[in-house]
Amino acid sequence: MTSPVVLVSNRGPVSFTEVDGELVGRRGGGGLVSGLAPLVAGTDTTWIAAALTPGDRLAASEGVIDAADMRVRTLDIDPTTLRLAYDVVCNSTLWFLHHGLHDLSRRPLFDRSWAEAWEAYRDYNQQFADVVAAEAPEGATVLVQDYHLALLGPRVREHRPDLTTVHFSHTPFAPPHLMRVLPTDAATELLEGMAGHTTCGFHSPRWADDYRASCREMLGHDVPTFVSPLAPDPDDLRAVAESDACATAFDRAADELGDRQVIVRVDRIELSKNLLRGFRAFDRLLHDRPDLREQVVFRSLGYPSRDGLPEYLAYRQEVEALADVVNRRWATDGWTPIE
Amino acid sequence: MTSPVVLVSNRGPVSFTEVDGELVGRRGGGGLVSGLAPLVAGTDTTWIAAALTPGDRLAASEGVIDAADMRVRTLDIDPTTLRLAYDVVCNSTLWFLHHGLHDLSRRPLFDRSWAEAWEAYRDYNQQFADVVAAEAPEGATVLVQDYHLALLGPRVREHRPDLTTVHFSHTPFAPPHLMRVLPTDAATELLEGMAGHTTCGFHSPRWADDYRASCREMLGHDVPTFVSPLAPDPDDLRAVAESDACATAFDRAADELGDRQVIVRVDRIELSKNLLRGFRAFDRLLHDRPDLREQVVFRSLGYPSRDGLPEYLAYRQEVEALADVVNRRWATDGWTPIE
Repeated sequence: MTSPVVLVSNRGPVSFTEVDGELVGRRGGGGLVSGLAPLVAGTDTTWIAAALTPGDRLAASEGVIDAADMRVRTLDIDPTTLRLAYDVVCNSTLWFLHHGLHDLSRRPLFDRSWAEAWEAYRDYNQQFADVVAAEAPEGATVLVQDYHLALLGPRVREHRPDLTTVHFSHTPFAPPHLMRVLPTDAATELLEGMAGHTTCGFHSPRWADDYRASCREMLGHDVPTFVSPLAPDPDDLRAVAESDACATAFDRAADELGDRQVIVRVDRIELSKNLLRGFRAFDRLLHDRPDLREQVVFRSLGYPSRDGLPEYLAYRQEVEALADVVNRRWATDGWTPIE
Repeated sequence: MTSPVVLVSNRGPVSFTEVDGELVGRRGGGGLVSGLAPLVAGTDTTWIAAALTPGDRLAASEGVIDAADMRVRTLDIDPTTLRLAYDVVCNSTLWFLHHGLHDLSRRPLFDRSWAEAWEAYRDYNQQFADVVAAEAPEGATVLVQDYHLALLGPRVREHRPDLTTVHFSHTPFAPPHLMRVLPTDAATELLEGMAGHTTCGFHSPRWADDYRASCREMLGHDVPTFVSPLAPDPDDLRAVAESDACATAFDRAADELGDRQVIVRVDRIELSKNLLRGFRAFDRLLHDRPDLREQVVFRSLGYPSRDGLPEYLAYRQEVEALADVVNRRWATDGWTPIE
């Protein structure tokens, strides 16, 4: 018999809306949910996540809900705590740090408001830990997702030593010279939090190595890790590829493109995606290869992301301005940019 | 008998000026020269460096010159080659890379003009290699200084296998995840150039480790390194400390400061010096510790550096604006900021 599973993440697999006094759950998006939901649907796994919408907050008071073929438990965290933990610590600090995106001579700033945000992050992790400790079946394996919940393991195991806790990072991990950018107290607490899980998983050996190197340097000991890839569900992809909608879109694209070649990219408008260099590379391609002009269509589908953060607003402006420059330079008669 | 020594660096120990048709050499500044010149003065060491002033260019045609108790050979490199190699590759790319200072979602850009600058950097290294090969005594040890001359070793040894070449970095070294930011060809050539020396030295074990890790990952083999500190000459420091000028300045400062405490920092206005965080830290100190207000004087002596580079102009503006904010917030009657 395998042990029961509890999955924990900031964003859950289902988004709830109140319709005529009834809570309706719909499967949400994002890479983590796309990758994990097909593995969880139809099983006894309980998925615990933060309430992100008003409907999610209503759902929180009802405990575990069956929705979209999953067992979902949402967690109503005070909006200020959630904002400080999610926007300031997770998105503006840890995401940037793990991806090496900070302009380090200027950012991050560890001022009084950051210290307050770090307290919120600890509180957010504690609230998750309390719910996991209350909900997890005896002997369960708790699968903790991503840097939002780095402190969960030791907080859960303090009250529930029967549980196995596995942390998995869907991002790179900061090597020692970047971990040292954090205030020493926070860096140590973060690494001790990760190391307080039974084991920690990463998508690539390099990222596991960087995490282990940071632990060796800042905690003084080695830690267990494992490496596992995660991809979209092939059956999901196949169903989309074989759908009528896909065939229609394909025919329309074929009509429009004729015998021209096409480059497609799909990204969140996000600093780690290298959109600026991608557009410059296309610009250079057309400069260096006159034979390809009017013969290649570059379609970039970028969707805005984390628009509440100034870094993302600035980046989006730069991306749009550069796309405009490339369009003006190479677009020919009869061509219109896609909005 | 020890082997003769040839020292090679971009900036030499002596700056030449033409006075009444005669070349006059004066000892120059900078950390590298302050650290090494006292070790070299009065020995048979030949110091080979780029000509940076009109006087240096005149000196270049005269071969080895005895000046300021040293044997100096300047190298007249075409100004465009020097500018591309020094400003674009050394200062804007390698310095930023080795210090982790790039805002990586935007910089560096590897466009056509960068490729041209990289060619200039190779040419600059080749010209140094030719002069070293021509000037170095049989069996000499060639001490190559810093990232400006990373490609020297193999180019020298191709014609002079009798020479021992030692490369020394007075900076950090980019770990693998930063070396991968460079175009692969350039990164490989740079590491092969370093590894083509008999050995490579660094100031700290961490920087030697980062260099070795980059070589293992990109060249596929381990390389020899050594670690050695370098400090200002204690006799030089002692002479300054015991001088009348120092005593006078100390008395004047004591009069001005009275029984207040003083914090002094001396920096080039340079992105790696963390000036912005330093000023913010002082601002926070006075905020958190009312007892220290009017009791502490913070004197920051920052001198402009690399003003030809836009990154430095921008940083200098930010530093000056922040100093102004801190001064306005805390300065009290009778106090004037120091220009």
